[in-house]
Amino acid sequence: MFTILPIKGYLDKIDGFFCDGISAGLKPNGKLDLGFIYSDTLCETEAIFTLNKFQAAPLKHYQRYEKGFKTNFVLINSKNANALTGEKGIEDINTIFSSLNFDLTNPLMSSTGVIGNPLPVEKIVAGANSFDLSSKNGENLSQAIMTTDAYSKTSLYEVKLEDGSSFKIGSVAKGAGMINPNLATMLCFICTDAAVPKEDMRELLEQNSHTTFNAISVDGDTSTNDTVLLLANKKSNAYDKEAFKEALRLVMHDMAMLIVADGEGAKKAVAFEVINAADDKEAEIAAKALSNSLLVKTALFGEDPNFGRIASTIGASRVTCDETKLVISYNDVVVFNKGEIYFDAAQEEKAAKVLKNDKYKVICDLGAGEGKFTAYGCDLGYKYVEINADYRT
Amino acid sequence: MFTILPIKGYLDKIDGFFCDGISAGLKPNGKLDLGFIYSDTLCETEAIFTLNKFQAAPLKHYQRYEKGFKTNFVLINSKNANALTGEKGIEDINTIFSSLNFDLTNPLMSSTGVIGNPLPVEKIVAGANSFDLSSKNGENLSQAIMTTDAYSKTSLYEVKLEDGSSFKIGSVAKGAGMINPNLATMLCFICTDAAVPKEDMRELLEQNSHTTFNAISVDGDTSTNDTVLLLANKKSNAYDKEAFKEALRLVMHDMAMLIVADGEGAKKAVAFEVINAADDKEAEIAAKALSNSLLVKTALFGEDPNFGRIASTIGASRVTCDETKLVISYNDVVVFNKGEIYFDAAQEEKAAKVLKNDKYKVICDLGAGEGKFTAYGCDLGYKYVEINADYRT
Repeated sequence: MFTILPIKGYLDKIDGFFCDGISAGLKPNGKLDLGFIYSDTLCETEAIFTLNKFQAAPLKHYQRYEKGFKTNFVLINSKNANALTGEKGIEDINTIFSSLNFDLTNPLMSSTGVIGNPLPVEKIVAGANSFDLSSKNGENLSQAIMTTDAYSKTSLYEVKLEDGSSFKIGSVAKGAGMINPNLATMLCFICTDAAVPKEDMRELLEQNSHTTFNAISVDGDTSTNDTVLLLANKKSNAYDKEAFKEALRLVMHDMAMLIVADGEGAKKAVAFEVINAADDKEAEIAAKALSNSLLVKTALFGEDPNFGRIASTIGASRVTCDETKLVISYNDVVVFNKGEIYFDAAQEEKAAKVLKNDKYKVICDLGAGEGKFTAYGCDLGYKYVEINADYRT
Repeated sequence: MFTILPIKGYLDKIDGFFCDGISAGLKPNGKLDLGFIYSDTLCETEAIFTLNKFQAAPLKHYQRYEKGFKTNFVLINSKNANALTGEKGIEDINTIFSSLNFDLTNPLMSSTGVIGNPLPVEKIVAGANSFDLSSKNGENLSQAIMTTDAYSKTSLYEVKLEDGSSFKIGSVAKGAGMINPNLATMLCFICTDAAVPKEDMRELLEQNSHTTFNAISVDGDTSTNDTVLLLANKKSNAYDKEAFKEALRLVMHDMAMLIVADGEGAKKAVAFEVINAADDKEAEIAAKALSNSLLVKTALFGEDPNFGRIASTIGASRVTCDETKLVISYNDVVVFNKGEIYFDAAQEEKAAKVLKNDKYKVICDLGAGEGKFTAYGCDLGYKYVEINADYRT
């Protein structure tokens, strides 16, 4: 038995972790753009990176450390992704770390922003050298890593175990555009003082990714920089695998849901629940096809219960399906039932009412087996176009 | 040797074909919404249909005819797709044909519009019974089959063979949204008086689809109704396989390019040319990833030479690629060259100038082999959202 309690505050509430965010002049108008996470003891570390073939320089830099390395520092900048910058991008990171006035062990870097511009090394060094490593300012860190995010994304839990011991786990993330299954375009930093063994870190990160970060989509693109980083300083000495697994799942689910609800220009967070598919894989294919479909996303934006587009998208995904077995509902409002169209004016009005919510489910019962998967997506409206038509300026 | 000449006019200029479009009250405000193609002799027929698993009723109706059937009539309506309508959708088509005052052989139907509404049978019967089968009014037909198309799409060629004989081939199509590789959401009707053997019709339709309809994308969705129909009345007695293949390719290419340039709300038609990929299949995967990427499409809309998104999309498509071999150009303006970023203010200005055009190429040299493929796409702007947020009303 264990208890998981959400607590107020940022990941700096976890014993031994420090963080802050400052303005280093990367973003205009003095906005926060450079942050850090510092641990006063060395942390075990695990990361999941993007499947994009062009991994950004910080990801390559991480992977050049020896297997099983420990770290006490992560430097994070927004506005420049340090991607498509070749060997120079990695050299820039080394230059930055060798220019800092701190005693750091295996320092890590993480970047988000425009692809294909050289990193502004001098500004970053000058900014980082002004850090106070004893700061506990999670709010500033959460702001500094944002790009087109409308709001900052954090989560914090305390886990109490049966023997009276406890640990904390917390996270800060950035998301917005380019969010896609197989890791969103996003950075997510998770810190814990749980005494989690290294091998559990990898296993549980991967297990929980499948139903959280890999289940969300904003626009179907996968970035060069996606990173989920887990740092464990083990200060609490407390650990229970089931409890840690569930707390990690909660943190990752929180971050994934905040990211999808803050999809660029999104007003609605929608769960696409595919049930009774031939198997779980087919359920996942169909659910992700729905969360990625432009025609579905624009209909959600228009609050239009256009279930024909839902059905068409499932058909186009080429999973096992048959219109005489298909049932489509918006929450509990059935609009298509095994070939019968439940769509008189009264039913349409009920469905339209569901679509006015900020959050709802689209449930598709394929009647083909026992597979199920839920993908999370958002609507797509004018604001997405506005943000992305001229992102660089 | 043969000569292919584009000629003015519609497919009714082909000997023995008749067509027209009328208003049957399916669209509001007396817009044309019902059309036909009639042939005064029986036509050999071949069709390519959508890969969507939920094929619309007209597609199923076609496939219930005996193999090798001939026809002399195609009835086409817009505004209602007769899709997801089950067995009733097919019965409705039979009811319509049994209620017409014409002597027709194996009549075909084709529908486009909203999915999941029953076909307005009475309006269609009343409208179709007012047809004059001796009409030659291709302009009206081209209007009647439009949904969100901004303009009608037709093409016509005369092919002169070495022996002095000649044949004609012409087409009318509708496209706009939901255009995706593996057949666009579109209807395309091709008529010819060439004496083309049945087996060549299938072979050449499939061959030419790969580089035309299957190479275009508007929004990555594949509809329930996609159809390319080829009708051959063989009246000319003229035929040469190479000449016919090329003329058919031209007609299909014309239609595909008109459809992509008229993507919902699109201002720009862009060719994504992937060269030196590991093989042709990988080139196709990368090229189609580009033409389907929301981030690429919104950057094109914003006339923003954001080559980072081009590279990121190629990386996300997971084809063989390496940033030290990658070269990206907009027409002849190189912006990224094997790890070097060619992107000072002068180069950016040149690139931005290319992006102001209505048509241009994005060329990606992967340096991995000899594979190549060109996909055709368009930009995505506010208008796409406007059209699709409330399509049904």
